[in-house]
Amino acid sequence: MDPGNPQYHTRNITKVVGGYTKTCTDLAVALYSQAVDKVFPVASTRVAETVKLLENTFRSVNIGLVNEMAIICNKLGIDVWEVIDAAATKPFGFMPFYPGPGIGGHCIPLDPHYLSWRVRLEGYEARFIELAGQINRSMPEYVLNKVTDALNDKGKAVKGAKILVLGVAYKNDINDVRESPALDFIKLLQNKGAKVSYHDPYIKDLSHEGLSMKSVTLTDSTLKSSDAVVLITNHKIFDYKRIAGKAKLVIDSRNATKKLGKRKNVVKL
Amino acid sequence: MDPGNPQYHTRNITKVVGGYTKTCTDLAVALYSQAVDKVFPVASTRVAETVKLLENTFRSVNIGLVNEMAIICNKLGIDVWEVIDAAATKPFGFMPFYPGPGIGGHCIPLDPHYLSWRVRLEGYEARFIELAGQINRSMPEYVLNKVTDALNDKGKAVKGAKILVLGVAYKNDINDVRESPALDFIKLLQNKGAKVSYHDPYIKDLSHEGLSMKSVTLTDSTLKSSDAVVLITNHKIFDYKRIAGKAKLVIDSRNATKKLGKRKNVVKL
Repeated sequence: MDPGNPQYHTRNITKVVGGYTKTCTDLAVALYSQAVDKVFPVASTRVAETVKLLENTFRSVNIGLVNEMAIICNKLGIDVWEVIDAAATKPFGFMPFYPGPGIGGHCIPLDPHYLSWRVRLEGYEARFIELAGQINRSMPEYVLNKVTDALNDKGKAVKGAKILVLGVAYKNDINDVRESPALDFIKLLQNKGAKVSYHDPYIKDLSHEGLSMKSVTLTDSTLKSSDAVVLITNHKIFDYKRIAGKAKLVIDSRNATKKLGKRKNVVKL
Repeated sequence: MDPGNPQYHTRNITKVVGGYTKTCTDLAVALYSQAVDKVFPVASTRVAETVKLLENTFRSVNIGLVNEMAIICNKLGIDVWEVIDAAATKPFGFMPFYPGPGIGGHCIPLDPHYLSWRVRLEGYEARFIELAGQINRSMPEYVLNKVTDALNDKGKAVKGAKILVLGVAYKNDINDVRESPALDFIKLLQNKGAKVSYHDPYIKDLSHEGLSMKSVTLTDSTLKSSDAVVLITNHKIFDYKRIAGKAKLVIDSRNATKKLGKRKNVVKL
């Protein structure tokens, strides 16, 4: 499933099924064939589960890799977004992934670790899964460092700064905050003493492990009075030109302001 | 470049160029536009080089990931090839890579380590590059273990066993052995005391760091008299039905015998 995907939905995503017995598989194929275009039977429930885990792990690892590339490019003074766009011109053998403030949702941050746990029982460490998890989990802190540095350039501390978080859903154009990196990021900011508010047109209330906030209205004065506006979720509905036009400082963790070109008040990952 | 690719060649692979100055970039674009369909200018030579390194690293990491998945699936008694084929039914967001005896060629095993070296100067370790390198370099030894186990099941040692290596080029349908995992694999076998010969229709002689061999003819008697036939490079020209039909034991590191179905005398990665 890919929530929010306008092109692919339940019916036209091939369903992989594996049964405990051959009869189970046949019944599952018969059932799913009523609702989806293509059903792909595999040898067992264990194979079917591993398919899901490979796919989730592929995404977690590739996001981890590109997050590490963002960190590396930052150290070398290279624009990682330009690098990815140029690499994506290759017509085969490459698939672009993009850096960001971390991964969320109910699959990619969680499922690979089932596999990791299972193979540890066999005495093996799933090293790619562990590394991807470490790097992806470190991204909210990396974005915090970007915010700290950008404020520091203006002689300001994070403590006491008014920070507006734009977007708290775990990805664009959906209303789901499960495992969203925004949750960790807001807590990190609060721990540093920032005055944090957020705006998300799809998430009116945020309640999570001691966090209890309401989405503020995105007025010009909210934008202007914030010491930093941090873009965490790149909802298409946001008016990025207006945001970058009104805000003193924007930390754009998703390259959402790409079309605006380079701006002095916008810092990217 | 993708040697041996029938669809994409110099003209229809977009060329990314970055110049030292704006004039350099303009001149490079003018030059390349004569020979290739699309030229994609980037901000600097450093960005252009990083594009190449991202692409190479993407491939190295994804091959490393799927090699680790092969090791994990082997421990869990799951067919990794079936898992990959099923995952590849996903119509977006997934790109299949395949496990094998290691990586070769003049780019993927080498170039990511330029980046790794460069960022180490900045005090950062490129962890994905290092991990991919470690796992990919360990694959010839992993294939050796498969050979050892399969011979052991028959009460045979590697020492003194007649082993025929099929394919020594670093990938299928080309005549290039640079950094080929076959070179490491043959040395590992020789170090264990095996009597190694090889057949590769594209590589008549093999000379490399103390190795000096000639491709043998692939007769029925060569196949029958080998204790194990190890498929390292999946050249399309090979007649896999004949090979699996005549050989006592086949270690297939590339799933080249996929179309033959499961066979008792064929062991896969």
